[in-house]
Amino acid sequence: MIITIGRQLGSGGRDIGKKLSEAMNIAYYDRELIEITAKESGLNRKLFEEADERARTGFSAGILGMRVPFLSEGGIACGGLSNEMLFQIQSDVIRSLADKQPCVFIGRCADYILRDRKDCFSVFICANEEDRIRRIISYGDNSIPVEKARDLMERGDRRRAAFYNYYSNKTWGEASSYHVCINSSVFGVDGTVSLLKEMMGKVSFYSE
Amino acid sequence: MIITIGRQLGSGGRDIGKKLSEAMNIAYYDRELIEITAKESGLNRKLFEEADERARTGFSAGILGMRVPFLSEGGIACGGLSNEMLFQIQSDVIRSLADKQPCVFIGRCADYILRDRKDCFSVFICANEEDRIRRIISYGDNSIPVEKARDLMERGDRRRAAFYNYYSNKTWGEASSYHVCINSSVFGVDGTVSLLKEMMGKVSFYSE
Repeated sequence: MIITIGRQLGSGGRDIGKKLSEAMNIAYYDRELIEITAKESGLNRKLFEEADERARTGFSAGILGMRVPFLSEGGIACGGLSNEMLFQIQSDVIRSLADKQPCVFIGRCADYILRDRKDCFSVFICANEEDRIRRIISYGDNSIPVEKARDLMERGDRRRAAFYNYYSNKTWGEASSYHVCINSSVFGVDGTVSLLKEMMGKVSFYSE
Repeated sequence: MIITIGRQLGSGGRDIGKKLSEAMNIAYYDRELIEITAKESGLNRKLFEEADERARTGFSAGILGMRVPFLSEGGIACGGLSNEMLFQIQSDVIRSLADKQPCVFIGRCADYILRDRKDCFSVFICANEEDRIRRIISYGDNSIPVEKARDLMERGDRRRAAFYNYYSNKTWGEASSYHVCINSSVFGVDGTVSLLKEMMGKVSFYSE
């Protein structure tokens, strides 16, 4: 069983994925993918780090006040490799890791990349705004004001949606793009983990 | 516990809601609301039936080739009562039913109408396209072609989205508008019912 987790910034989706992988004793891939992709491709790690940064939340950049360029469509990434090419290299790594063992992937359109697998279960985690803002503030060592956190939250969503909608044929955050979506404010991080673990045992991809 | 169920046309959401209400031995309100609203308001049942038809899937009308007007914004419904007024009357009935006993509401923006209740759990049901089309064809006594079913499916989604997005402050079918979204193709109708029943026992509306 392969589990992919898409998530709103500040929803706890990453913690949920990590804890779920521990509870199920399976591998977990989030930023680990950068290291592996660099190694597999023989290309400089920095290339993938920078592409990831461009595609990611813009969170740390946002805090530091850096300008994070919008994911350029077909634009050339440093090193002469386009974003698309780096995405394809990473996609191959995701497919090959999924072939090897059960695991959890965080983000990176893994649900779309693995869409042809029959054993891939896709999850989306959202949360109430007040919980997301509180979590984002805690990521920033509790030193950013609420309004800044709200801004990061909104830009994080836009960035993730832009990345997902560009590389997949689905819409980020839409219920019908995933198998299950859970609001983590309703069940808590641990409650959501145990719910998902139970669900895994019941997936039948049953068509009546 | 109040459960509200939004759903894509052909997702089996209505069956799931009905079976869930039976499994939990609680009341179930779908079109029953029309009768109750007419009775409570003292207004003609036909008024609510027609408003419901305008807001609903357009399914039967679609099959019969009738023209179903788009939900008019602020338009006047027959009898001189606006759609908004009929919606408000129905909303009052939904709130008063929810006050009386645990129950399941299908559609009608019940999740938005009951948003201030702490015990309201909102669900959205979607399904894979092939399952939805098969189900829509079966609603039409297996006498409609696939392309017609696909057209009804797409128009049904647009109509439900228009109704929900107009009357609520949320977006229909978006994960973050609901507490849990489930693709019924993954667990089947009965599997989804038992999953939801289990979830009910775990809702904590927990904020970490």
